[in-house]
Amino acid sequence: MDLTSVEKFKIKKVKNNSMEELEDSIIKEQPFTIFVNGYELVTLMTLPKDLKELTIGFLASEGILENLNEITDMKFTHQNSIIQVEIDKDIDINIFKKRTLTSGCGKGITFTNLKDCSAGKISENDLTMKSKNIVKLMVNMQKSAKLFEQTGGTHTAALTSSDNIVYVIEDIGRHNTIDKIIGKSFLNKINLNDKAILTSGRVSSEIIIKVLKQKVPILISRSAPTNSAVNIAREKDLTLIGFTRGNRFNIYNDLNRIKY
Amino acid sequence: MDLTSVEKFKIKKVKNNSMEELEDSIIKEQPFTIFVNGYELVTLMTLPKDLKELTIGFLASEGILENLNEITDMKFTHQNSIIQVEIDKDIDINIFKKRTLTSGCGKGITFTNLKDCSAGKISENDLTMKSKNIVKLMVNMQKSAKLFEQTGGTHTAALTSSDNIVYVIEDIGRHNTIDKIIGKSFLNKINLNDKAILTSGRVSSEIIIKVLKQKVPILISRSAPTNSAVNIAREKDLTLIGFTRGNRFNIYNDLNRIKY
Repeated sequence: MDLTSVEKFKIKKVKNNSMEELEDSIIKEQPFTIFVNGYELVTLMTLPKDLKELTIGFLASEGILENLNEITDMKFTHQNSIIQVEIDKDIDINIFKKRTLTSGCGKGITFTNLKDCSAGKISENDLTMKSKNIVKLMVNMQKSAKLFEQTGGTHTAALTSSDNIVYVIEDIGRHNTIDKIIGKSFLNKINLNDKAILTSGRVSSEIIIKVLKQKVPILISRSAPTNSAVNIAREKDLTLIGFTRGNRFNIYNDLNRIKY
Repeated sequence: MDLTSVEKFKIKKVKNNSMEELEDSIIKEQPFTIFVNGYELVTLMTLPKDLKELTIGFLASEGILENLNEITDMKFTHQNSIIQVEIDKDIDINIFKKRTLTSGCGKGITFTNLKDCSAGKISENDLTMKSKNIVKLMVNMQKSAKLFEQTGGTHTAALTSSDNIVYVIEDIGRHNTIDKIIGKSFLNKINLNDKAILTSGRVSSEIIIKVLKQKVPILISRSAPTNSAVNIAREKDLTLIGFTRGNRFNIYNDLNRIKY
């Protein structure tokens, strides 16, 4: 039992009007505050695991961090509920402040925050995936989602090559899973340009933009995309797949990266 | 077809390695920016419907608005992508700025933002629900979720009495559905103290706190809660139910409001 990730509670289970009391595992949620160069940037609600990965991935997604060498120091304080990051460059805090709760950019299909979203299209590359692998990889990711199995309370994301999962992340938030995937790739110096990301969660513009920023060519979801996500994927040449369930999936943008 | 809520796309559907092209309905997501007294407060990504409800519910959830009379003016600009709200009191913008992406409060089980979360416990009242009604109301809510049926891309929430749904809201975000439910109750002067809220979404501390602030005594989810949500519910005497599926559900905090 992973006690950093779940808490045990006595609960009542009701079925057909009969009730029994039992002990249940419930996923943990904690606030985690990121300071950068002494400035309190953000508090994220997260599963208290992979917090270094979350920090790096979040900073990369927000356009604050471009590579790991920019970090001169990182230290956890207050029982890992706070991280103090020192970065070797100035941060324009005012730009960040404006972005409370927003998608960052992806405003419809027009990017308004050019600093973040001026990233060019994803270039053609050698990553192609076989149709049958898409189905297989999603099944494998879900089999690896042990916290979901115990609690039903997590989203899952995975980094994969064309035919093998590199690693799997679970978190209470779909955004956090993607940030942790990205942060882990920074820490482990894993190239993202020839990988795909799998996610259990819905694909809104925020998710698309996180993936686009790292030039990941293929995003595969178990769930639905929004219209903005589809429009941005088409504009930027990201291959986007949704509703990957059983032996089916939908392709919202292809670009010949998927082989039948 | 509700063209304010869905966009049509030509997509490819793959099943067992065979592919067909067809037209699909995809849920709309748009940025929506709330200005209060001339200050740009927040941009939310939302389904572009019930935006007045979203605004009022969000301001209420954030502790900015206590009753509708405080609003002296509300007007939409820029094709309804911006709302300008005038409120008849001073807002402490600095407090709000600190709360980017956070839960507001609910930091673990200790509320740190007393201004928002000092609300006492939910008092005993006359709202009790029969076990069979919980199951029935969840089924009825899901039958009403027409955009989910079309797109698979929405969360749903509903306001209910002990045995009847008052209204149902769909949105791309689970937080937005709760805010729209609350905003609609403000606009229609519906008392929330003797109602329950149903949600399709997971119950994290943010969701619990929105519901607590309005003194709604019962929250019923189709999905999992987090440990923080359970702890806050127990501390504040909110009846919390999760995993309401088929003829089953789990009771995380009861308080004799549920009758078998």
